[in-house]
Amino acid sequence: MFVTLVHVRVKPQHVDAFINMTRANHKGSVKEPGNRRFDVLQSPEDPCQFLLYEAFDSEADAKAHKETPHYLAWKEAVADWMAEPRRGVVYHGLLPK
Amino acid sequence: MFVTLVHVRVKPQHVDAFINMTRANHKGSVKEPGNRRFDVLQSPEDPCQFLLYEAFDSEADAKAHKETPHYLAWKEAVADWMAEPRRGVVYHGLLPK
Repeated sequence: MFVTLVHVRVKPQHVDAFINMTRANHKGSVKEPGNRRFDVLQSPEDPCQFLLYEAFDSEADAKAHKETPHYLAWKEAVADWMAEPRRGVVYHGLLPK
Repeated sequence: MFVTLVHVRVKPQHVDAFINMTRANHKGSVKEPGNRRFDVLQSPEDPCQFLLYEAFDSEADAKAHKETPHYLAWKEAVADWMAEPRRGVVYHGLLPK
């Protein structure tokens, strides 16, 4: 699996809107070819801190995700809601294969 | 979902043994009641750096994991292979439910 952890810090006043917009992105993403996970996580210690756990069969599948209408709509909508630039960290998924 | 990200740094000479032992833990863990994910990730930039992505339906399921034979065997086997204490970070999984 090709895995990306996307760390996102959201401005407090936009947390609810961020969750709603990310739900739409989640719904579209889990239907993409090669998608294995698109988990949306929130820190219990800081509700402004989110983590998107995105796993695809291949790097090509992950790149194709960034061309989808739901991703592009999400990217544009949430841009001004972030307290700082989001940060993606890539991992090689050993298990499951 | 109740999610824990476990960051592990392994001593270089023990990376292969760590992967083998973690594979056994993975195989047992994905069969546990309430388990949703038990993904084993390796950093492409630093092969000594691992991330275990563990998701359960509930915190109780996650706690029960720590009583299983495969977890206890893993914990004991890998203790001396780690370059530093492992670090667990808990998240509330919003999606999927």
